[in-house]
Amino acid sequence: MKVAVYSNVRTTVSAQKSGWTSCFNTAFRAGAVMGFALCGIGIFMLYVSLLAFRIHYPAPEDWIYLTECLTGYGLGGSCIAMFGRVGGGIYTKAADVGADLVGKVVHGIPEDDPRNPATIADNVGDNVGDVAGMGSDLFGSFAESTCAALVLGSSIGMSGGWDAMVFPVVVSAVGIIVCLLCSFIATDLHPVRSEKDVEKALKVQLISTTILMIPAVYLAAETFLPGEFELRATVGLDVLTLHPWQAVTCVGMGAVGGLIIGLVTEYYTSHSYKPVRELADSCKTGAATNMIYGIALGYKSAIVPVLVLAIVVYGSFAIADMYGVALAAIGFLSNLATGLTIDVYGPVCDNAGGIAEMAELEPYVREKTDALDSAGNTTAAIGKGFAIGSAALVSLALFGAFVTRIRHASGDELFQGGVNMLQPLTFAFLIIGGMIPFAFAAMTMKSVGVAAMEMVYEVQRQFDEKPHLLDANPTERPDYDACIAISTKASLKEMIPPGALVIFTPLLTGIFFGVYAVSGLLVGSLVASVQLAVSMSNSGGAWDNAKKYIEKASPDSELKGKGSDVHKAAVVVNTVGDPFKDTSGPALNIVMKLMAVLSLDKQLIES
Amino acid sequence: MKVAVYSNVRTTVSAQKSGWTSCFNTAFRAGAVMGFALCGIGIFMLYVSLLAFRIHYPAPEDWIYLTECLTGYGLGGSCIAMFGRVGGGIYTKAADVGADLVGKVVHGIPEDDPRNPATIADNVGDNVGDVAGMGSDLFGSFAESTCAALVLGSSIGMSGGWDAMVFPVVVSAVGIIVCLLCSFIATDLHPVRSEKDVEKALKVQLISTTILMIPAVYLAAETFLPGEFELRATVGLDVLTLHPWQAVTCVGMGAVGGLIIGLVTEYYTSHSYKPVRELADSCKTGAATNMIYGIALGYKSAIVPVLVLAIVVYGSFAIADMYGVALAAIGFLSNLATGLTIDVYGPVCDNAGGIAEMAELEPYVREKTDALDSAGNTTAAIGKGFAIGSAALVSLALFGAFVTRIRHASGDELFQGGVNMLQPLTFAFLIIGGMIPFAFAAMTMKSVGVAAMEMVYEVQRQFDEKPHLLDANPTERPDYDACIAISTKASLKEMIPPGALVIFTPLLTGIFFGVYAVSGLLVGSLVASVQLAVSMSNSGGAWDNAKKYIEKASPDSELKGKGSDVHKAAVVVNTVGDPFKDTSGPALNIVMKLMAVLSLDKQLIES
Repeated sequence: MKVAVYSNVRTTVSAQKSGWTSCFNTAFRAGAVMGFALCGIGIFMLYVSLLAFRIHYPAPEDWIYLTECLTGYGLGGSCIAMFGRVGGGIYTKAADVGADLVGKVVHGIPEDDPRNPATIADNVGDNVGDVAGMGSDLFGSFAESTCAALVLGSSIGMSGGWDAMVFPVVVSAVGIIVCLLCSFIATDLHPVRSEKDVEKALKVQLISTTILMIPAVYLAAETFLPGEFELRATVGLDVLTLHPWQAVTCVGMGAVGGLIIGLVTEYYTSHSYKPVRELADSCKTGAATNMIYGIALGYKSAIVPVLVLAIVVYGSFAIADMYGVALAAIGFLSNLATGLTIDVYGPVCDNAGGIAEMAELEPYVREKTDALDSAGNTTAAIGKGFAIGSAALVSLALFGAFVTRIRHASGDELFQGGVNMLQPLTFAFLIIGGMIPFAFAAMTMKSVGVAAMEMVYEVQRQFDEKPHLLDANPTERPDYDACIAISTKASLKEMIPPGALVIFTPLLTGIFFGVYAVSGLLVGSLVASVQLAVSMSNSGGAWDNAKKYIEKASPDSELKGKGSDVHKAAVVVNTVGDPFKDTSGPALNIVMKLMAVLSLDKQLIES
Repeated sequence: MKVAVYSNVRTTVSAQKSGWTSCFNTAFRAGAVMGFALCGIGIFMLYVSLLAFRIHYPAPEDWIYLTECLTGYGLGGSCIAMFGRVGGGIYTKAADVGADLVGKVVHGIPEDDPRNPATIADNVGDNVGDVAGMGSDLFGSFAESTCAALVLGSSIGMSGGWDAMVFPVVVSAVGIIVCLLCSFIATDLHPVRSEKDVEKALKVQLISTTILMIPAVYLAAETFLPGEFELRATVGLDVLTLHPWQAVTCVGMGAVGGLIIGLVTEYYTSHSYKPVRELADSCKTGAATNMIYGIALGYKSAIVPVLVLAIVVYGSFAIADMYGVALAAIGFLSNLATGLTIDVYGPVCDNAGGIAEMAELEPYVREKTDALDSAGNTTAAIGKGFAIGSAALVSLALFGAFVTRIRHASGDELFQGGVNMLQPLTFAFLIIGGMIPFAFAAMTMKSVGVAAMEMVYEVQRQFDEKPHLLDANPTERPDYDACIAISTKASLKEMIPPGALVIFTPLLTGIFFGVYAVSGLLVGSLVASVQLAVSMSNSGGAWDNAKKYIEKASPDSELKGKGSDVHKAAVVVNTVGDPFKDTSGPALNIVMKLMAVLSLDKQLIES
């Protein structure tokens, strides 16, 4: 995957010299290669696993064992995502923050300047964190949402045979086809001709896939689902009778909900709108007001996404119980191929800019990559919105699977009447669960801080020891390797404690305190993770774009432009935002999902 | 109350010229006047209300109407607390942040310098926010914890007559006596003789009251509670039989839990320990790493308090159902008189320092008040820990009262089997509830930011228009009134939206979506509020003390001391911490409590 991105980064750089269309298309196609490859491979492997399972267990009454088979698939996806996101996030942000703090803030040299020893580590980090980390995160969500629906389908005695059972996989497959069709709109039907088209093109992609998704899923439902099928409710003894349109409604609610969350995220993180401009204004009175405004912006930006999520949860739950929630999660991620394309597009442009800077190409090349990158930042934020929303639904669906499996394992003795919040153990662990995302965020942010400080000292040491390093035509070469080594070591070492926290908490809770405690833990962590993940990602995204907005301002304007005190205030706070948006915030998705999927552990459920 | 504080501030200033003992005692007694007066008046009014109620409703079967009577009392306390905390917080922090940003950061003049036009507003603000706001907050907690226990006692068919019913009030009354006895330890038995005694004296106070509280409450329980009494469980149809020792255990768990939370808070916010020293070190690489470390510190500092809370909830719940939780909340606040004393002590010293600076007294006076103030900052953080922990327990107890009342009103049709998290509406509102504290924090922080920016412009305008204002012996006087007007207007205007959010959310949710939704809302907001309140308060407290630690460092040390770049980084971030610790963080207590108490609204319950 990374090879494809690398080679495309180079093509993007050479494309800069020609027009906007080829620049954009090169970067966009680089993203699409990864997006479609990842979704395609993911669904292919899942389908192969399902076929193998069916050959092994042809009888429908054995399909309940699908849980064990699929939980492993989801768990694998999430574990890699965990280490990719957290390790990658620490790697990239240690380098980025370290490079910025000494290079930009203290010595005033531009971003990606080859004289800065941390530059290479920073650029490698963009790949490790923003491409590999983000890809594995979204792949984890994708795998787990499909698995959650399949696990639920197999546990709740869904009628309708194998075809109905694999319907969730069909939805994901349909999503890939729809995304593929729509990708031609951006690159061929309405090509990008100028800077202002870039953001529009990316947005048209997202909206068109969502709209086309609904009739496509309807067709799939009519083909694969029987005219009427039954499933058991998670709570109580009711058996629900469902029709294909109800399944389609749940998927549709997810898809539209995801789009709204994405657009709200854009509103709060793009400098085309009021919030980021206000944030840029706040830099006029220094870093502190920028900080206060940005944190408030992040917190505020969670309001609409949470309301949308609540509506999707309520609607899909009311229509088709937990199975509906799982379908809504799949709907959220149905345009994942497009989402990934857009997400990868950003780091491709960012890295292209880095290479242009280091290769000392003409300044207009850098200006173009910056413009492309700015749109990429916003759409990356949209992608994060999708990922967080879907993670919340996936965890809820997995929690539903957990409750269903416990009911089944205990012969309906436990949880038949639902999960009572006023069980002392459940309530106690509800509060503890709420603490986990905060502890996780603390650990990951601190890791970035520690590694960044080490990086700062190393860069400073090199500047001190090689006094000619900062000359306009330096006679000495910086030691890039030393910086890369710091990031690599930090990311490997520092991802162990947060990883252990997330993996062992549900297991140990289950072993020592039982399923009442686990149910509180999962719900508490879900509730707090959603808010924290949305607000951290959006604060970080907004700070980054506020900084870019100030950079674009002319020196005579109120914002004073690049190099001014206003800009310095924005740069300082942006380094705080970096771990917010690229390490801690998005990694919280994985916290929710991984804890939920771990709870489906067989020993835990049967204990 | 404020008059007492004012007059004591003046005495503290004159006491500075004598030894440490008199300095400390003056400030301490100022706090004690407010602490004991507030607790005494609070409990007296409550007792009078109870007596009036009993005369009106002598028959035990009518005591269930106590809910309406007491809910009003708690609601009154919380509403005033809301406006005191939020309005006061905005007032004081707008002035403080504004004064610091222009005065300290841009022009390098010391804190409280009379040449700074925002100085008077800053000092007035310390009273409005830290004394009046904090006092009303803790009074609200005190009133509501007692009310929650009384409401529960009256709703759950507690046997044992009037004496058993008013036991919670007796616990609070016993608390005042114990605090009074212990206050002589600090001022007379072991007086403060040097700087290092100050923190110890304040801590000995807290620990001694907690230890003495347990036997005192045991005596009260033996006297007022019958040897065996009964109450109905919140969930199911069981009737629990309790003995006095069980009630004492619940109170004791609360008291000890509060102390542990307080001490953990101290560990994370005092510069005597590793976390704050590490935070001070992080300033060496600038404001950004300080910011990252501080936020991580705040998040991390929530771990132990949340675990303690979970243990107290589980333990007291398992021992005596929701009534036990209410008793634990009372236990938390049983040493409130001491808590308030210590809390008010801080602003008194702070203001004394301000007056010393403005009156141009000898520098050693200021040094002494700073030392006294530094200990006050830590103990204020301890007080905040108490307030947050107790607020969580109070809200849970009030939630229990809500469930009990709904069961009663619906003739056991609703909630008999507990509150099911997997009810679609409940789950949807669980997520929405988790969002409320974030929205509230966003609103209040933004308000501080907006008002602080206005203050910055005003101060800057005065400096520009009166160029001689900053001379060593200024020939012009700053316009203090303009700054006071900005703070006053901002606090009055800006507290309306967050206030409305907290007051109308539970009411509107109840009216439009019913009690399932309200139950989700309350629990979601409780789970998220606790984490956010603890972490915001502690981040802010830690930044403040890290700054003070750097100020105390010598210019030759690694931290470079006052006026250095390291110090500047600390000052910038401290202005971010100000609204964290004095506006948004502690106001979240009130969010939890006020929403819970509003849900006991009669119309809402009967709808």
